[in-house]
Amino acid sequence: MKRILVLGAGRSAPFLIKYLLDNAEHHDWFVTVGDVILEAAEKAVGRHPRGAAIQFDVNDSELRAQIIAAADVVVNLIAPNFQAMLAADCLKHRTHMVSASYCNEQIRDMNQDAVRHGTLILTEMGLDPGIDHMSAISLIEEIRGRGGKITSFRSYGGGLPAPGEVDNPLQYAITWNPRNVVMSGSDGALFLENNAVKIIPHQRLFQQTWPVDVRGLGVMEGYANRDSISYKDYFGLDDVHTIVRGTLRYPGFCETWSQIVNLGLPNENLSIPNLAEKSVRDVVKMFLPATVSGGSTESQLAAYLNINPTGAVMSKLRWLGLFSDEPLGAKGHTSTHMMVHLLNEKLAMPATARDLVVLVHELDVEYDTGRKEQIKSTMIEYGQAGGITAMSKTVGMPLGIAVKLLLNNELPITGVQIPIHPAVYRPILAELASEGLSFTEHVEEVL
Amino acid sequence: MKRILVLGAGRSAPFLIKYLLDNAEHHDWFVTVGDVILEAAEKAVGRHPRGAAIQFDVNDSELRAQIIAAADVVVNLIAPNFQAMLAADCLKHRTHMVSASYCNEQIRDMNQDAVRHGTLILTEMGLDPGIDHMSAISLIEEIRGRGGKITSFRSYGGGLPAPGEVDNPLQYAITWNPRNVVMSGSDGALFLENNAVKIIPHQRLFQQTWPVDVRGLGVMEGYANRDSISYKDYFGLDDVHTIVRGTLRYPGFCETWSQIVNLGLPNENLSIPNLAEKSVRDVVKMFLPATVSGGSTESQLAAYLNINPTGAVMSKLRWLGLFSDEPLGAKGHTSTHMMVHLLNEKLAMPATARDLVVLVHELDVEYDTGRKEQIKSTMIEYGQAGGITAMSKTVGMPLGIAVKLLLNNELPITGVQIPIHPAVYRPILAELASEGLSFTEHVEEVL
Repeated sequence: MKRILVLGAGRSAPFLIKYLLDNAEHHDWFVTVGDVILEAAEKAVGRHPRGAAIQFDVNDSELRAQIIAAADVVVNLIAPNFQAMLAADCLKHRTHMVSASYCNEQIRDMNQDAVRHGTLILTEMGLDPGIDHMSAISLIEEIRGRGGKITSFRSYGGGLPAPGEVDNPLQYAITWNPRNVVMSGSDGALFLENNAVKIIPHQRLFQQTWPVDVRGLGVMEGYANRDSISYKDYFGLDDVHTIVRGTLRYPGFCETWSQIVNLGLPNENLSIPNLAEKSVRDVVKMFLPATVSGGSTESQLAAYLNINPTGAVMSKLRWLGLFSDEPLGAKGHTSTHMMVHLLNEKLAMPATARDLVVLVHELDVEYDTGRKEQIKSTMIEYGQAGGITAMSKTVGMPLGIAVKLLLNNELPITGVQIPIHPAVYRPILAELASEGLSFTEHVEEVL
Repeated sequence: MKRILVLGAGRSAPFLIKYLLDNAEHHDWFVTVGDVILEAAEKAVGRHPRGAAIQFDVNDSELRAQIIAAADVVVNLIAPNFQAMLAADCLKHRTHMVSASYCNEQIRDMNQDAVRHGTLILTEMGLDPGIDHMSAISLIEEIRGRGGKITSFRSYGGGLPAPGEVDNPLQYAITWNPRNVVMSGSDGALFLENNAVKIIPHQRLFQQTWPVDVRGLGVMEGYANRDSISYKDYFGLDDVHTIVRGTLRYPGFCETWSQIVNLGLPNENLSIPNLAEKSVRDVVKMFLPATVSGGSTESQLAAYLNINPTGAVMSKLRWLGLFSDEPLGAKGHTSTHMMVHLLNEKLAMPATARDLVVLVHELDVEYDTGRKEQIKSTMIEYGQAGGITAMSKTVGMPLGIAVKLLLNNELPITGVQIPIHPAVYRPILAELASEGLSFTEHVEEVL
């Protein structure tokens, strides 16, 4: 019997856990799910005879070592900050790890050890990053196969409510880890545009957005997502003058969020005393300097951020609860914790609404004949209202398939990897397509 | 024989290493110094019979474990990012650790284990943090002893060139880890002012400065330093309406540095391709959006940052080399590495100039009699031109004394600590004073 350890039973986990349990009998697996909230793990496992739920505190080094040593593979859905620590434990106990989080330098440094141990640390294996990479490289290979030279690569991903199905002014809802939503963009972004390297720091990222026309959804807004340039080598895109990975929102979201960043609310380092007893207004006031005084918090904030005190952004900030006088009662001790609390409260996915995920690749291609094309490749998947979300399905399915291939000895790779190896993305894309997760291509000749 | 392992032989280390070697024979110590640059360690140790230099790469886990296991105490002068990792290794091998870096949550979480193992992890044991804490709590106890109630506590520290001794428009020179200078303030700051909690994010920290009148140096500028409020409990300052820890610069530095932060240059997360071949101007252009175009880089930057294109800040940025066209040739791959390179080049301490360190405590005190005082307690120490810097002496001496007390079994504490225990600060302040490092108090009645 093979032992699978799933760490984290949050919003992205339900589909994955169901997939693993559904396949457990056939493949002779046992699936242990650990979460800091035992009930979350229990709820995900139910009374399945091949599943067990445990309480898991990622900071408990003894428990961590014990359960990782006992597993054949760990599926890591824990917050990205803990990824390197968990990868190090997996390496030590020669347990494979599959994760939906981004790889980073610390983990990349473990490659040599992982290869030596015959261990696979497969990161960026969810939706975005994950399906986006696999579909991109598959598309790139196809274009190359027919003699195309790719000159520009833009790729976008987003997890959102279905259009018109939520009634909130931000047109957003939480379908994945809300902490990651709050801290989104905090490392800034780096990309290549018309042969120029461009860098945008966090405090400007949500101001420097651009329109993206998505087939089937209309015009959305995009903002740059982390380091796009590193994927130039991964994808072998030697001829591009532009490579950008971006995140999609409905227009108007970023304008508002940029002011939340401008104020400084995404911050995980500073401990606010007695946060639970404070109101959001109390905390907002802390971010206003003593030199801004007189009038209401609202007018002080508008003056400080240089936004119109009666305009759309202020109205959205007010709707989000930035001037609430209720004691927060929130867990945690930082302004990021407060924002997580607010987002969970105001931007919860209603049981009556569907979410969607969208991935778009936009490629400019040239052929020896002189023909130029713009290729758009789009995947849009809707979730079930009140059921499995599109986010959970599209994050969980590639992870689940990867685990299956790995335990069936059908993944002939070791070391620290992202899913750009044909032995990984070919069988996974094929199974995703057979489950209805596939891309529609649209080719337009550029005259 | 007791074995001392010093990790890091950078700018702050020479005095410490000399202190330990000078005392090695008398106390029967052996001092091993490890640095990623072997020559730096060798230079610090010289041919001392009780010293050895080794090459030390902090990422080499096997070497790390081996040398830490062999030591009785580690003095950790490695970059703060590695502090938790080194503390964990020390804990595992029951080796004590003394460090000049700030404590953090990860290290604080090791307290229980450290107590159980009888291991001491003594952090914040240099100048600032270090001597500042010890002198503050000693002063606070003295005031309490004579019946004073402290209503306001402001404490400042700075490491600078001696006034008028360097000829550069920023009036600054690098006397400590230049990486820490570049990343200074990146977590933002949190303090209490007139009973209001105030938070300043990184991107605004160097704009929200205030004048500080330092006896013996004149009016300087202060900016808030990290989380000041946590020291309220450490120092037992139950009655303060204001508690601020700040950093001192000569006036005009922060105005310029705030634009470097505004542009986004302090960034350790984004890898710039082929940084060594780029000029600083190339990198600066990366931070300017494509929408800012026309004219020189200089005029684009001025327009983007909204600063006067021919004013003082621009002139200082130009002097610093922000528009240099020379290939950098810098080690590393981020804009922080570039800034470290620039600072090392432009703000090196000249061999003819002295540095200084300054610590100031400003306390408002009330007595039952109704008398109110403002107490200023100031320490200014000058370094030797071309010799041991004041920074190295004031960081190294408390570390060295702490090691001596520890190895002589005269530090009756274990666990994760900062130096606020009388058994730590009393003997250390006494020895510092005997070496000429002491504070001058100035009391003024407030009428």
